[in-house]
Amino acid sequence: MEPMLQPALRRNVASRRIVAVRNGSSFDRTDRLAAEEPMEIRAGGPGQEPSSVAVTMRTPGHDFELAAGFLFTEGLIAGRGDVASVAYCELPPDEQRFNVVTVRLTRQFDVGILRRNFYATSSCGICGKASMDQVEARCEPLPAGLRVTAEMLLGLPAALREAQRIFDQTGGLHAAGLFDSDGALLSLREDVGRHNAVDKLAGQAALSGDLPLRDRVLMVSGRVSFELVQKAAMAGVAVICAVSAPSSLAVETADRLGMTVVGFLRGESFNVYCHPERIVG
Amino acid sequence: MEPMLQPALRRNVASRRIVAVRNGSSFDRTDRLAAEEPMEIRAGGPGQEPSSVAVTMRTPGHDFELAAGFLFTEGLIAGRGDVASVAYCELPPDEQRFNVVTVRLTRQFDVGILRRNFYATSSCGICGKASMDQVEARCEPLPAGLRVTAEMLLGLPAALREAQRIFDQTGGLHAAGLFDSDGALLSLREDVGRHNAVDKLAGQAALSGDLPLRDRVLMVSGRVSFELVQKAAMAGVAVICAVSAPSSLAVETADRLGMTVVGFLRGESFNVYCHPERIVG
Repeated sequence: MEPMLQPALRRNVASRRIVAVRNGSSFDRTDRLAAEEPMEIRAGGPGQEPSSVAVTMRTPGHDFELAAGFLFTEGLIAGRGDVASVAYCELPPDEQRFNVVTVRLTRQFDVGILRRNFYATSSCGICGKASMDQVEARCEPLPAGLRVTAEMLLGLPAALREAQRIFDQTGGLHAAGLFDSDGALLSLREDVGRHNAVDKLAGQAALSGDLPLRDRVLMVSGRVSFELVQKAAMAGVAVICAVSAPSSLAVETADRLGMTVVGFLRGESFNVYCHPERIVG
Repeated sequence: MEPMLQPALRRNVASRRIVAVRNGSSFDRTDRLAAEEPMEIRAGGPGQEPSSVAVTMRTPGHDFELAAGFLFTEGLIAGRGDVASVAYCELPPDEQRFNVVTVRLTRQFDVGILRRNFYATSSCGICGKASMDQVEARCEPLPAGLRVTAEMLLGLPAALREAQRIFDQTGGLHAAGLFDSDGALLSLREDVGRHNAVDKLAGQAALSGDLPLRDRVLMVSGRVSFELVQKAAMAGVAVICAVSAPSSLAVETADRLGMTVVGFLRGESFNVYCHPERIVG
């Protein structure tokens, strides 16, 4: 059997020029982002065409282990004895081949047990660019005119935190808050899943007929993933802020869609990862 | 049209007796956990049988908004005009009806655009108990004999943090570490998705023929969700530790499977949410 464990590091960090704001002054610097890219996991037995089992947004590296581990922890394989080989997709284009991992089994593979499809995908390969294309095709252009001040942004974390009722009791929940451009909290939702907290805000707006959310600022308590940028863009939000870091694909997607991404918003500091033109003062 | 926005709070916090360890002494107290339960989202047009679109693990509350928001941010509905009604499942049993939300559309619903199925589900209703049943049916019993000391546990966060190479560069990544019962770090994986970090560890063990991971302790950098307990249980891990809080369903599932859950492990403190018998000294 070929060795199936991989070297640890492979483009798992991305560099980017950002605007850093510290105690009232701002400067450009290079920042490093955790890489995020979709990976499709396929599985098939002897003579079987491999089936697409899942697409997960992951940080590249240890991809074979991720594929095998996913199949194992989801109960689709029983262990090493079920695995004949693990390999990247052998078809071009090069950009995509490292985002498709095929696990060949030593026995027939029953895909009916559990399916978890994050994104519909019919062709071989999925890449960050394809994910961005998909979002761009679905979203209306974001409003260019919205402007917010640095002072307003610096006040968002405390406003979000004060309104987090469930977090106060449990210390264990994501929050997403919708603010107007003056920093007034309009709505807050909490959830164990940060994507759910954002979906709850978007759903409230959808059911109230308030979409798109032009001139609104979204603040989340954790990190900014591709999925959050996608959901914010669908709702028409042009400024997304977070207490923690954005991923590489989140920033690349936001940049392309014209969305302002603010990260590490805490104390008297924040970083602007793209479209800083909306922040004035 | 009936009002579709819901009251905010509904069993989104769960109480539980825990063992708290603070600076060398331990005592029992009541802790509050963020509730986590699966919710199935269904959608259908006039005359259409509603289709299951997704099952997401969420904190109960604002469920109608979550259902509408998910359909909107995933591009399956265009806004309020597409929504005729939102309702909980009308069939018994009662325990499950609040975990199934059906969105009736004013037009035909095309389910082919995007499917995201977290758990296969064929019947009306999904509940925490069903999720636990599913995990229990799949997992081997966890080893009862493993013992660890409080001192060893208190050393895990620093050991994990020191080994986080990508986090050092980006400040934005989840980590999962596998330790032996003496606290030695055996393997560490980082990822934008915490479930991926755990899958990478499980996959490494699966590909190396090292499963089940008896006598191993899993430490994660963030929170403990149901999904993490499920994955740990599949890999045979009997002790899971986290820097932050576990969810209600995570603890209920771990309790039933015989897994020890340690949360808020930081400084000289931690909480033990279930099966404290494995912690000695």
